[in-house]
Amino acid sequence: MKKLIYLDNAATTPCYEEVAELVKRESVDGYFNPSALYKPSVDSAVKLKKARDTIKSALHATSGELYFTSGGSEANNTALFCTRKPKNSRIIVGLGEHDAVLNPANELKNQGYDVVFAPINTDGSVNVDEFKKLLNENVSFVSIMHVSNETGAVNDIARLVKLTRKLAPNAVFHSDGVQAFEKISVNLRALDVDLYSISAHKIHGPKGIGALYVKKGVSIKPLIFGGGQEKGFRSGTENLPSILGFERTVELNEGSFEQNYSKKCDFKEYLTAKLRGSIDDLVIISPAENCVPNILTVAFKDVRGEVLLHSIEEDGILVGIGSACSSHRESRFKSLLGLDDSHRDGIIRFSSSEFSSKDDVDFVVNSIKKRLDTFKNYKRV
Amino acid sequence: MKKLIYLDNAATTPCYEEVAELVKRESVDGYFNPSALYKPSVDSAVKLKKARDTIKSALHATSGELYFTSGGSEANNTALFCTRKPKNSRIIVGLGEHDAVLNPANELKNQGYDVVFAPINTDGSVNVDEFKKLLNENVSFVSIMHVSNETGAVNDIARLVKLTRKLAPNAVFHSDGVQAFEKISVNLRALDVDLYSISAHKIHGPKGIGALYVKKGVSIKPLIFGGGQEKGFRSGTENLPSILGFERTVELNEGSFEQNYSKKCDFKEYLTAKLRGSIDDLVIISPAENCVPNILTVAFKDVRGEVLLHSIEEDGILVGIGSACSSHRESRFKSLLGLDDSHRDGIIRFSSSEFSSKDDVDFVVNSIKKRLDTFKNYKRV
Repeated sequence: MKKLIYLDNAATTPCYEEVAELVKRESVDGYFNPSALYKPSVDSAVKLKKARDTIKSALHATSGELYFTSGGSEANNTALFCTRKPKNSRIIVGLGEHDAVLNPANELKNQGYDVVFAPINTDGSVNVDEFKKLLNENVSFVSIMHVSNETGAVNDIARLVKLTRKLAPNAVFHSDGVQAFEKISVNLRALDVDLYSISAHKIHGPKGIGALYVKKGVSIKPLIFGGGQEKGFRSGTENLPSILGFERTVELNEGSFEQNYSKKCDFKEYLTAKLRGSIDDLVIISPAENCVPNILTVAFKDVRGEVLLHSIEEDGILVGIGSACSSHRESRFKSLLGLDDSHRDGIIRFSSSEFSSKDDVDFVVNSIKKRLDTFKNYKRV
Repeated sequence: MKKLIYLDNAATTPCYEEVAELVKRESVDGYFNPSALYKPSVDSAVKLKKARDTIKSALHATSGELYFTSGGSEANNTALFCTRKPKNSRIIVGLGEHDAVLNPANELKNQGYDVVFAPINTDGSVNVDEFKKLLNENVSFVSIMHVSNETGAVNDIARLVKLTRKLAPNAVFHSDGVQAFEKISVNLRALDVDLYSISAHKIHGPKGIGALYVKKGVSIKPLIFGGGQEKGFRSGTENLPSILGFERTVELNEGSFEQNYSKKCDFKEYLTAKLRGSIDDLVIISPAENCVPNILTVAFKDVRGEVLLHSIEEDGILVGIGSACSSHRESRFKSLLGLDDSHRDGIIRFSSSEFSSKDDVDFVVNSIKKRLDTFKNYKRV
C-alpha cells in the first residue's frame, strides 16, 4: 500500500492507539451506568469527576464547570441557543466562524434577533476595530473562535472579551476553542470567557465527545433534557468510555505539549520555506504571527484547490481545501480573504500533527510543483 | 474478585468485545472525516451509508431516513423540540415516558403548549381508552414509548397510531424505541410511526450513539446546526467508528435474535417462578403478556428497593430500582402503579441479557430471601 502523508489534521485526527484501547476496555468492562446506585456505578461516577477535573485543569478553568457533550458542534449550539438572550437583542459572531456557530446564528436571525457578523482580516482573524464598532448595551451574546479552522489565525480573545465587558456589559462571551485546545496554550482564567467549546477528535481523541466550559454565574439552559446527567445540564447516559478516552488524550497532549509544539513549528517553517522557494506566485494566507503551528493555508495561482487536492492524492498526500464540513459547498470563506481572481480558487490547507514528518516535506512540495507545472500546459490564454 | 451477576441491562449493557475492537480499529485506522474530499473519506462515506441501510433494514424502515445522533436522549429531544407544532396546540405524552421525553414535554409546557399526559395502567402500559379521550384535531404531537423502561410493558403502538391518525389527523407520532429495538421484533412499516428513537448502548453497542428514524414527508428541523452532516439534519463530524460499531451490534443482535429471545424468556420464566415460590407477598408489576422478555419488575413487601439493592450487591448481584437516570430522585413512577403502602417503596427491576444465566437464578432468589428474612427482624410494629 502506498505511504499516506496525512496533512488534514484540522479536519480530524487518528485516535491515539492507547486511547482507543482504553475506550475499548471501558466499553467492555467498565460499562456501568454512572447514574445507577451500586458500587461499580459509583466508581464510574468518581472516574467521571476525575476526567472532568483533568480537562478543566488543562484549560486552567478555575471557576466554572465543564460539561461533556457529543462534540464541538453540540457545545457550540448549546452556547448559541441556550443562553439568555432578550428578544430583539444583538448577537455578534465572527464572519469566519465555523458553520457550527454560523448556522445557529443564522437560525437565531430567522427568529428575529439582531445578528451581526464581525468582519475578518485577510488572514482569517477578526478585525478588532470593526468588532469594537458592533458593541453596545443591547448585545446579549458574542461568539468569536479562538483559532480559525481555515487559516489557523489566533484571535486575541482576552482583548475581545475586555472590549466586550466594557462596551457591551450585558453580553455573554463564547469562544469556539476546538482548533485551539492543545494546539496553543489555553488559559480560560486569563481569557475570561464565559463559555468555551472543545472537542476530542481534533487532538487524537475519540470522535463523538466534546465539552462546553461554563463560567460560574453564567445562566444557561440545557439543549438536551432528560435524565438530568451532567448536573442537569446535559442529559443522556454518560459516554464514560469516550470521556475517559478524552481525559487520557488530554494527558498525552499535555505531557508532550512543548515537544510537539516545536515539532509542528519546525514542520511548518520548513514547509513554508520549501513552498516559497519552489512555487511562483504563492500567496500565504495564514498569518506569520499569532497562528497555530499546525495549520498553513496558502493559495496557488491558476488552479482549483479541489483539482490540486485530488491530483496530489495520487501521491498519497491528503490535504484540505478549508473546513471539511463545507468542502462540498462553494466556500463563502475564500471570498473574504482579499485574494485576486487567479488565486481565489486555489486555496489549500495543510494541517500537520505530531505524527507529521519534516522528511516528507520535500516529497509533498515536489508533488505539488510537478502538478502545477503540468496544469500550466492546459492553461487557456 | 467476586462473581458479578449483572441484572441491570435496561440501564446499560457491556459492549460486545468484537464491536469494541471494531470501534478501536476504526478510530485508529479509519479515522478519516467522511465529509472530506479524498478517497479514504469517500470510502468512509460509503461505509456510513451501508451502516444506515443495515440498521434501517433491521427496523423494517422502508420509507424514510435514519439519522445518527449521540444517543436516545438526543433523538427524543429532536423529536419533541424540532417538529412543527402550532402555537398553543396540544402535545400528548405518556405519563410513564422516560425523562428524555417527559422533561422536554415539561419544557414545551413552559413554552405555552397544551401538554397533556396519557395515563398508564398499573403494569406501566398506556391506557388506550384514556389515551383516546385526549385526541382531537388540535393535537400536533404524540410521544408514546414502545416499551416501558420501568416495567418492560409493550405498548400497542400500531393501534395507538391508528387511533391518532383517525382522531388527531394533524399529529406527528413519535415512539421512543430505546427499550424495544432488538428486544422485540420492530417493524416500523407496520407500526406506521412518524418518528422512532433507538440507542446502541442498550443492546451491547457503544455508548454515545443512537439514531432517529424520520418517516418520509415528516417536517422536522435540526436540533444541532452546523456543517450540514447527515443531509443537514444533524451537524457535527460523523462519529463513524461508533456508527460502524452500532451497525455491527445490530448485525450480531439480528443474527441471534430468536435464540437470545427464548434464552431471555427462559430466564424470566424461571426467575418469576422462583420468586413466586420463595417470597411471600410479592407483587409482579411487569405484565404477563405484551412484555419484553428481558425485564421483570416486582415489588417486595416492607422493604425499600434501594436497601435491598445495596444488600444483595454484597453477593455480587446488580439490579435496578427503575430508570437509572432517575435513581437519585424520588421516583414519580412508583406512585402510578396502584401499589399498596407496604409495596410502594419495594420495587426492583431485574433486566437480563443474552449473557444472563438461568443457573444464577437460585443464587439470586436465595440472596433476596435471606435479606428479606433478616429485615423482618428489624420491622417496627
